[in-house]
Amino acid sequence: MDSIIIQKFGGTSVKNTERIFNVANIIAESYQKGYHVLAVVSAQGDHTDELLAKANEINPKANLRSKDLLLSTGEATSAALVAMALEKLGLPAIPLMGWQCGVETDTHYGSAHIKRINTERVLSEFAKGNIVVMAGFQGVNIFNDITTLGRGASDTSAVAMAAALKAEICQIYTDVDGVFTTDPRIVPNAKKLDFITYDEMLELATLGANVLHNRSVEIAKKYHINLEVLSSITRKQGTIVQEIVSADKSPVRGVAKDEDIARISIIGVPDIPGIAFKIFSKLSSKNINVDIILQSIGRNGTKDISFTVVKSNLDTTLGLLKDYITIIGASNIVTDCNVAKVSIVGAGMEFQPGVASKMFEALYQNDINIQMISTSEIKVTVLVNKENANQAIRAIHAAFF
Amino acid sequence: MDSIIIQKFGGTSVKNTERIFNVANIIAESYQKGYHVLAVVSAQGDHTDELLAKANEINPKANLRSKDLLLSTGEATSAALVAMALEKLGLPAIPLMGWQCGVETDTHYGSAHIKRINTERVLSEFAKGNIVVMAGFQGVNIFNDITTLGRGASDTSAVAMAAALKAEICQIYTDVDGVFTTDPRIVPNAKKLDFITYDEMLELATLGANVLHNRSVEIAKKYHINLEVLSSITRKQGTIVQEIVSADKSPVRGVAKDEDIARISIIGVPDIPGIAFKIFSKLSSKNINVDIILQSIGRNGTKDISFTVVKSNLDTTLGLLKDYITIIGASNIVTDCNVAKVSIVGAGMEFQPGVASKMFEALYQNDINIQMISTSEIKVTVLVNKENANQAIRAIHAAFF
Repeated sequence: MDSIIIQKFGGTSVKNTERIFNVANIIAESYQKGYHVLAVVSAQGDHTDELLAKANEINPKANLRSKDLLLSTGEATSAALVAMALEKLGLPAIPLMGWQCGVETDTHYGSAHIKRINTERVLSEFAKGNIVVMAGFQGVNIFNDITTLGRGASDTSAVAMAAALKAEICQIYTDVDGVFTTDPRIVPNAKKLDFITYDEMLELATLGANVLHNRSVEIAKKYHINLEVLSSITRKQGTIVQEIVSADKSPVRGVAKDEDIARISIIGVPDIPGIAFKIFSKLSSKNINVDIILQSIGRNGTKDISFTVVKSNLDTTLGLLKDYITIIGASNIVTDCNVAKVSIVGAGMEFQPGVASKMFEALYQNDINIQMISTSEIKVTVLVNKENANQAIRAIHAAFF
Repeated sequence: MDSIIIQKFGGTSVKNTERIFNVANIIAESYQKGYHVLAVVSAQGDHTDELLAKANEINPKANLRSKDLLLSTGEATSAALVAMALEKLGLPAIPLMGWQCGVETDTHYGSAHIKRINTERVLSEFAKGNIVVMAGFQGVNIFNDITTLGRGASDTSAVAMAAALKAEICQIYTDVDGVFTTDPRIVPNAKKLDFITYDEMLELATLGANVLHNRSVEIAKKYHINLEVLSSITRKQGTIVQEIVSADKSPVRGVAKDEDIARISIIGVPDIPGIAFKIFSKLSSKNINVDIILQSIGRNGTKDISFTVVKSNLDTTLGLLKDYITIIGASNIVTDCNVAKVSIVGAGMEFQPGVASKMFEALYQNDINIQMISTSEIKVTVLVNKENANQAIRAIHAAFF
């Protein structure tokens, strides 16, 4: 069998007719090289936001199941239009929704996980010589309901298809040249990375770098997918995501910012065992991911527990905890949405001492207060006031690059 | 089991948030009366036209399969939004695409016929107490590809579901009060009919009355569906479509106009047997419906054959016939898009002589030239110059009502 290539195109890459033909030409090139091509597309430009606005006008608290059907139409539209552009170029193309490509998910509407991919249909299209243009971001669950995989999850669709189809390469086309040391809009001299490890990319994705959907990187790492992030406009060599990156001078690969978070503090929690477990298991039972957790030292028999959640989970979290805190005997809850996470990531920092302190020094010299700290082997994250976030990034980037 | 009601809402009935809540309230009323409700919805307002415009910008000759996926998103969007509005009213609703409701069609992309409906999913939702909001106009074929049933075919979706689910009644909500003796925009004193027979409705639908999709009436007649056409705005008693209508003074029930046609004339066809068969079997093999056919008397060994097709089939028809006419020895083809069909329909005319001549007289008195004539037991159709069409309708309406 011939080699398979997966090419994923984000919303800006298909936002209008001109861009759609640009994408069709990229696909055509691979097809003419002899590849079986599966193109995975996102909804055009602001289409998803427009659909959400319509939904919110009617019912801001709409069932996620209804919302998933609504949102899935965005990617289906793109897939049909890209296939039409390929037909116009004289190429055989068929647009398919996620369920038609065999993407089977669990039942977590709005943020479903892929459980299994039945590749039969796609392989039969390849056998007929067809290019498959697949609607990203979506699948189907055991009830035959359409599910979506979460915002930005067309990356995940692409990488999962690459794993299932044993593709030679998975290219993620975007509107920037690859993965940068930090956001070039904040730090103009940020530089593009030629290579990055799965682990580094995973941390960057999770920490808000907004380049790849984090689950896509998890899957790529697990199945050793040959992954490349590159621009659909400039077509320059992008960033290769792989297992190991050859030695690099800087222990830090990137600086990331995430403003889509809220801090929640539960004040006056009784200082007895099991309280944190109870609180966080309650949240995880509702699929709420808690990020940085900070627990103060007990004093006078009570302590404070602070943590961050993504903003869209704030209401649900508060709803879950409102009555619960009186049950566990805490005094009250305080929230703060005016915060940002700033992180440094690099596989090398594990072996180079002093990386965290260099970061803290840069913040100190710029008079930026650190609210919370969280570290792992390959990252250091701090929570700062949102107004200080860009200044923090510039200072940290300057210190390391 | 409780009774089932099918309620179909056209594009204007769901065009914005206000109208969607109006529709939700109509559905809620039936639900609260104890009905199991299946609502069938069309795409919002101009959504289908917008999607077609996008497609045409990219590839006017796009594959119908790709186009069907594209267009199916319009109805899916409406279904999701209407379900959200019902949720907002506190009612349990689930939006489903055609394939999810078990609508299985043949493979004629763009104008597929329903072959079978698997009602399992809808009945299981009814059993759970859910209202089902179904995307009209679409189904799925044996290849698992999404198909559409043709412009306006959400009516057909509704009636077919009514037949499959043995619904007590099928209501077609629209923006007018029912079926009128003719288009009230042309003849202000056109009157609403309280009752009409399936056969009359079928002729009117086929002849361009634009009230119901003709296939929906065929199915309603075949399965004796209790069908009502009414306004989603005024909620007044509409028009009941049924087997037999009690005696009525006028033999004519309605006057219809269709401008979406083109006349094709094949000139100088050899006057030998089998030619008409060859021409029209060639067209029907490509699923092209030919309407009025007129063949001139043979003269000097040749004759002319004229017929009408819907405008969207004109190019395909000419493509099929271009080379063929030289093979059969005809001299050339002439087309005219500047024509309109004007028809009178009424089950009573079969038993009342002079109906056709009364129609011709009205046209003669208004100096309107008749290009072609076609009749059946319950209708008379004439082809006239498009400019004369509205005047013709007014004259005919005045003669009969």
